[in-house]
Amino acid sequence: MNVQEHIEMFGTIDSELRIGGQPLSRLAARVGSTPFFAYDRGLLDARVDLLRRLLPARIELSYAMKANPMPAVVQHLASRVDRIDVASAGEMQHALDTGIRPDRVSFAGPGKTPAEIRQAVAAGIIVEIESPTELGRVIAAGEELSVEPRIAIRVNPDFAVKGSGMRMGGGPQQFGIDAEQVPDLLASFAGGADILGFHVFAGSQNLNAEIIAEAQNQTVDLVAQLADALPAPLRYLNLGGGFGIPYTERDAPLDLETVAANLERLVSGPIAERFPDARPVIELGRFLVGECGVYVTRVVDRKVSRGRTFLVVDGGMHHQLAASGNFGQAIRRNYPVVVGSRLSSPAGEEMSIVGCLCTPLDLLADGIALPADAAIDDLVVIFQQGAYGLTASPTAFLGHPAPAEVLI
Amino acid sequence: MNVQEHIEMFGTIDSELRIGGQPLSRLAARVGSTPFFAYDRGLLDARVDLLRRLLPARIELSYAMKANPMPAVVQHLASRVDRIDVASAGEMQHALDTGIRPDRVSFAGPGKTPAEIRQAVAAGIIVEIESPTELGRVIAAGEELSVEPRIAIRVNPDFAVKGSGMRMGGGPQQFGIDAEQVPDLLASFAGGADILGFHVFAGSQNLNAEIIAEAQNQTVDLVAQLADALPAPLRYLNLGGGFGIPYTERDAPLDLETVAANLERLVSGPIAERFPDARPVIELGRFLVGECGVYVTRVVDRKVSRGRTFLVVDGGMHHQLAASGNFGQAIRRNYPVVVGSRLSSPAGEEMSIVGCLCTPLDLLADGIALPADAAIDDLVVIFQQGAYGLTASPTAFLGHPAPAEVLI
Repeated sequence: MNVQEHIEMFGTIDSELRIGGQPLSRLAARVGSTPFFAYDRGLLDARVDLLRRLLPARIELSYAMKANPMPAVVQHLASRVDRIDVASAGEMQHALDTGIRPDRVSFAGPGKTPAEIRQAVAAGIIVEIESPTELGRVIAAGEELSVEPRIAIRVNPDFAVKGSGMRMGGGPQQFGIDAEQVPDLLASFAGGADILGFHVFAGSQNLNAEIIAEAQNQTVDLVAQLADALPAPLRYLNLGGGFGIPYTERDAPLDLETVAANLERLVSGPIAERFPDARPVIELGRFLVGECGVYVTRVVDRKVSRGRTFLVVDGGMHHQLAASGNFGQAIRRNYPVVVGSRLSSPAGEEMSIVGCLCTPLDLLADGIALPADAAIDDLVVIFQQGAYGLTASPTAFLGHPAPAEVLI
Repeated sequence: MNVQEHIEMFGTIDSELRIGGQPLSRLAARVGSTPFFAYDRGLLDARVDLLRRLLPARIELSYAMKANPMPAVVQHLASRVDRIDVASAGEMQHALDTGIRPDRVSFAGPGKTPAEIRQAVAAGIIVEIESPTELGRVIAAGEELSVEPRIAIRVNPDFAVKGSGMRMGGGPQQFGIDAEQVPDLLASFAGGADILGFHVFAGSQNLNAEIIAEAQNQTVDLVAQLADALPAPLRYLNLGGGFGIPYTERDAPLDLETVAANLERLVSGPIAERFPDARPVIELGRFLVGECGVYVTRVVDRKVSRGRTFLVVDGGMHHQLAASGNFGQAIRRNYPVVVGSRLSSPAGEEMSIVGCLCTPLDLLADGIALPADAAIDDLVVIFQQGAYGLTASPTAFLGHPAPAEVLI
């Protein structure tokens, strides 16, 4: 997906990028300081609408708020999706602040502390068990609090998914309980919690629809085998998500139609036959919010060193760890970047954009074509920043102020 | 450097690691929560003493506080070193809070905003100019505030240093002003600031003493050429630092004697002859504080998945970006790690240590030998955490509480 397509998704006003209906310079004036993150409410809604339109009606959407825990974003989505998934007791508090029903909140992640599990049981959310130890802790917390805990078992599948940005299932994993261990665990279960069902998640940031569809098929097969051992009918069937978004020019967007067609087949076929009480859940973080956000940073200096032109901006890697190539990437590739205040100028000169940190890691764009007249005070925009931006970056590094975040 | 050598540096009490004179479990009780960072005051002092003993007396030591800006650490070092280097206006405030004289504080880094430069000029610290634009801003701020700004010119040298963890000089760079541009810049300088001298810094985290010595020799040669164009005698000669510390078993500690012997030759020879008014500065961050700190995290779960044993801890990559292999490393290598509460148990079983984040990136140790009896509630210690630990990590990721930091 190229830069022009990203620009078109947001739109333009005169020679500026449009964000939430406003020209970039006016939004920057409203925010009052750079750098900042801006999330476009209309694009968020459009993304939810797209999913609702294409996916089978019986599918529930869960928002994995780890992708973007900004309270206004979580609040906005809380009324538009069916569930929220949290990754810590801290996230759980923000999810519950939205007014969502506790039984619509799930809590996944290895290493839940006894204190976190006690909080989750007290709240009445669904705790996704990642180990036999966690099951014991949940039951103990339920007894202590006189509450029947709601739980699901997170399963580490016996298959792996190729082509994911991050593989999270198959082989030895810290995530979930190995599929082959689940029957024994359920056989030894002596009550003390309501086991609603299963969560199987094999990998994230996948752009290949066929692979996602195949993983969903294998997941339904696996759950069909495991469900026999459940003490009650299956009421929770979390198929994971892993829908990717295109970060670089060589990435093509996910073919959502293909994924949707396969889900339709599963929902009307094996799921309807086998699990009439369950509405399957697709859990999405990055795919829901990632493309709706931008990072805006101001040019502080323009300098030429030994033939190379640098734009030095007031933001940097401390807010943009992934764009700098330091968030799990084996190879650094440029994210889509424009000078958002000069969209009419032809991109004719090769430049690098570097942040204000005193480290060579702080590289936001390496040798890309930008307007030759790009100058101090111009606003640089990095796309695909709605997910894993601010909170996935080392914000305290070098003591710069925290950036603002706005939902517009 | 192997794990046993790291243990010996801190010492032991019974079967536990000793930190700041206390057994690990007692320190953990004092802190009251895990995970936490602990910095050993005695080891900090020992490191300063080592440098003072080996380096020529005329060398000034500057602490690059970006490595560890914890206020207590900065305060402790402020009375033991000669200077503090800051990388932002935020760091500058903390440096000045220690009571250090402003002319002993330097401010380096590309992308200083006009507001930051105004703050620095008002404070009276040394602003290290990274571009002609910054020189203009400093002079303007001085006029506005009726203060003569103290400045130094950061020079991007015409040589590169091999073997650095991060190369920061030579070729095109966002750092400093190209050496060949400096004479013209000085020729066109018409007053408005006191230009004290130069800072040349070619690369960080270097473990090869010969290469560091050669870079220092080239730096003195370069400054000798450039100093002719200065409007006043050179009074500031910052030779950089770049002294590395060993993070992995394959790293050997830096041979400080070789670096010191070369500095002695420079100080008594060319520097004394050419710059009688200047005390050369060696600027160190990581080398001063990196080995004095540990990260302590508690085992929350122990699980076996398909033949692999995982210790799941309550900390993780959100405090340990570098140990997880995501801070500029091309290849992930294990940092030195022990179960600090079981030093007497033989390290006989291969395990992996993972954090509590719901991502496969959160890997703190991959297949290392640990005590077979390592269990829930044990305290895992990661060494070499005094520099670029907490502030260089995405602390807000997944909404876990911030870790404590103690200087003991």
